[in-house]
Amino acid sequence: MHAVAGFLESPAMNAPTESVFARGAQALPDDFVQTLRGRFGERFSTATAVREQHGRDESSYPTTPPQAVVYALTEDEVAAAVALAAQHRVPVIAYGTGSSLEGHVLAIHGGLTIDVSRMDRIVAINAEDLTVTVQAGVTREQLNREVKDSGLFFPIDPGANASLGGMCATRASGTNAVRYGTMRENVLGLKVVTASGEIIRTGTRAKKSSAGYDLTRLFVGSEGTLGVIVEVTLKLYPLPEAVSAATCSFPSIAAAVDTTIAIIQMGVPIARCELLDANAIRGVNKHSNLSLREAPMLLMEFHGSPAGVQEQAEAVQAIASEHGGTAFEWASTPEDRSRLWKARHQAYFAALQMRPGCRMLTSDTCVPISRLAESINASVDEAEAAGLPYWVVGHVGDGNFHLAYLLDPNDPGEMVRAEALSQRMVERAIRLGGTCTGEHGIGLHKMDYLVQEAGEGAVAMMRSIKLALDPLNILNPGKVVRV
Amino acid sequence: MHAVAGFLESPAMNAPTESVFARGAQALPDDFVQTLRGRFGERFSTATAVREQHGRDESSYPTTPPQAVVYALTEDEVAAAVALAAQHRVPVIAYGTGSSLEGHVLAIHGGLTIDVSRMDRIVAINAEDLTVTVQAGVTREQLNREVKDSGLFFPIDPGANASLGGMCATRASGTNAVRYGTMRENVLGLKVVTASGEIIRTGTRAKKSSAGYDLTRLFVGSEGTLGVIVEVTLKLYPLPEAVSAATCSFPSIAAAVDTTIAIIQMGVPIARCELLDANAIRGVNKHSNLSLREAPMLLMEFHGSPAGVQEQAEAVQAIASEHGGTAFEWASTPEDRSRLWKARHQAYFAALQMRPGCRMLTSDTCVPISRLAESINASVDEAEAAGLPYWVVGHVGDGNFHLAYLLDPNDPGEMVRAEALSQRMVERAIRLGGTCTGEHGIGLHKMDYLVQEAGEGAVAMMRSIKLALDPLNILNPGKVVRV
Repeated sequence: MHAVAGFLESPAMNAPTESVFARGAQALPDDFVQTLRGRFGERFSTATAVREQHGRDESSYPTTPPQAVVYALTEDEVAAAVALAAQHRVPVIAYGTGSSLEGHVLAIHGGLTIDVSRMDRIVAINAEDLTVTVQAGVTREQLNREVKDSGLFFPIDPGANASLGGMCATRASGTNAVRYGTMRENVLGLKVVTASGEIIRTGTRAKKSSAGYDLTRLFVGSEGTLGVIVEVTLKLYPLPEAVSAATCSFPSIAAAVDTTIAIIQMGVPIARCELLDANAIRGVNKHSNLSLREAPMLLMEFHGSPAGVQEQAEAVQAIASEHGGTAFEWASTPEDRSRLWKARHQAYFAALQMRPGCRMLTSDTCVPISRLAESINASVDEAEAAGLPYWVVGHVGDGNFHLAYLLDPNDPGEMVRAEALSQRMVERAIRLGGTCTGEHGIGLHKMDYLVQEAGEGAVAMMRSIKLALDPLNILNPGKVVRV
Repeated sequence: MHAVAGFLESPAMNAPTESVFARGAQALPDDFVQTLRGRFGERFSTATAVREQHGRDESSYPTTPPQAVVYALTEDEVAAAVALAAQHRVPVIAYGTGSSLEGHVLAIHGGLTIDVSRMDRIVAINAEDLTVTVQAGVTREQLNREVKDSGLFFPIDPGANASLGGMCATRASGTNAVRYGTMRENVLGLKVVTASGEIIRTGTRAKKSSAGYDLTRLFVGSEGTLGVIVEVTLKLYPLPEAVSAATCSFPSIAAAVDTTIAIIQMGVPIARCELLDANAIRGVNKHSNLSLREAPMLLMEFHGSPAGVQEQAEAVQAIASEHGGTAFEWASTPEDRSRLWKARHQAYFAALQMRPGCRMLTSDTCVPISRLAESINASVDEAEAAGLPYWVVGHVGDGNFHLAYLLDPNDPGEMVRAEALSQRMVERAIRLGGTCTGEHGIGLHKMDYLVQEAGEGAVAMMRSIKLALDPLNILNPGKVVRV
């Protein structure tokens, strides 16, 4: 543990065991609280309900609240709050919508959460350049409503209606990434508050640049540990002239995945290629009142000119047939498509209802696509053997899938068994040349896996960067890398 | 100047004035030389011809040789050489093919150049995953020859037959970037020798990941100042089923650029969209024995299915006509296409011949595409007013263009005037929301512009990262950021 004096004198965190969450943080310094209260008035809160709301995300971890929350309205307010926190060595956690999945926003060292959700202004739409600049609290659905009249859209869609600051921070992706890339490819520039409370800019509105170190990409995926993102400049895309969606059922997960591999290898520019296993479809059918066939399914979407979409669809239909795909069904109207994708997006909540009161442990590995079938099948076999309820969805065009366990919170043994299976899944992904997380991030949960994946040398380099940019370790401490 | 003791006790560099190049570096320590000679034998050289060959690039700077050159064959050899250099605090410069344009490889502080051009092994082609792993010295043309039989290609094409390690280091792009992105988007992972001589890995073969800080993107564009890239894992693409190329002449540069803007805004997935001005075409015609119309021209390429290519071409032809484009000509055979693109790639050498014995100063700005016509026209007007010979080419689909001056090396006044014009061009690009370099990098030449573009705060952060990763400042010192 480097450099952390005063407030952060708690021991270094290891695995996120109960003791991590049970640890009491010191009270906030009085003059820190007074100064914030003076500046932010009612937008500063130490109320239990507010703190608890900011002490949880969509992970299965126990609520771990900060000691205080401030709602910032401007980048200057964020900068002032961080500068003050630096002065008092108080941990700072940036908070968007709380939809992260690996414990990113949990205040395991206590401190101050800066909620940026009210920083929800569209700063500039530059339609002719296909760029937009937004405050960090703008959500992706809000953004798409705002740019629709310009004939444009922002494709990155992690499912949740996350804030764009948060999507940058976790390097989010989701259903459209197979065609449009992830946040890594779609952020042109950022405004960031540094650990000392200074505001810097990274990147420009130019589409490409060779000017110096890629600070933009360094902050994308840094999970609030290197700076607080306050403004984001993104690429936009022309709304496709034609869109069509299709579902296709397969005799096995392997057949669906092999179809996907062939689609990618042929270079078909498919926009979405989602796998749902029979369990996921059962949940979706029940939750969304649909009657999809309860077998492994690909849910696909094609973007392009009318002729181009037609051509892609024909190519894919031929490939699917070769792999035993049946019941190819088209959703050509916007209403039909919307119903299908809404169902897909609600798969998470649908699954929760399959075992009322359950907690969910969701895995998130990504492998080279040729190893995907092997990777999913081994994980499914292990889940079946363990007898734990589970379901699978996958952004399979990218080699990324999620296997989620539905766990009884009153049976701690289930969590232990699921975590052990999740570990095997991650270690398998790493062995197959893949990554421990395709899109959910490291957070609290995967710090050891990061070391397995990247090696001690690379993680030591990450630690050097963390300490160079945040020498007091006040920015979301205890996440990504241990310092 | 931080931390640099012993060998590197020269003063901090400011602008690359004559004194920068004239400065004598200290002799290499005897036991450093003896150890390298013992390990590398004839692959270690202090011969003047070898040193001078490694002391220049394609910039207009005077040759500035290192004191010694070593030809590495393996990553372990690179690691050993860097570890030894760290021990003796000797500067280390990585060298691929010497095709950089901003003085990147010049040994302004003396030291050891590690030539990786003999590290030219294809490590693994994973055709089914569309990935390839190569040693850093493999060139892009070699790579494309090796993967062609797999039905794949690597699109990034900066013109020069650069090494892939060097292309990573400068975040190269070129003609295909409008569709396929730059090295930023196409590097999956790296092996890098750190400043202490350790070998680390970044990234995996998975297409996406949210695992920790994006070290891959940090090294891409770091110009040898943070580590020596020894191995590169890249994305490949299926060879397009159909390719066609076309040229179209325009009454003005603005008309050609407006055509480009409309193409991009309509979302046509054009693969290449290159502007040549009349001066560039004159050079190309003479050099390549062609008879292209000597007027502003777009040279375009379309990739896709036969029907898709046809559709793109029709859309583009209609847009071009609306903007006064005439003499639309197709190059449908591979031979015709090859001749056109060869001519484009030789534009640089063709231009050199337009003023025998000249030196070239090439600018490289990139702006949001809506500001491109304004940006080029102002620069052309200034060049005309100055009466200096010049030519223009542009990767205009990305908002990136090069204006190059042909300068009399015996008239130092010409260089001064050209540099002043180049400065106006860069400052204009920054003012228009763009960048001081689209693809050539910072090198020696643009360190002050980087500060103008990114601001003191962001450059200070880059400096912190540099010093965290290279505390002795031995890795290509005096480039990108001053420490």
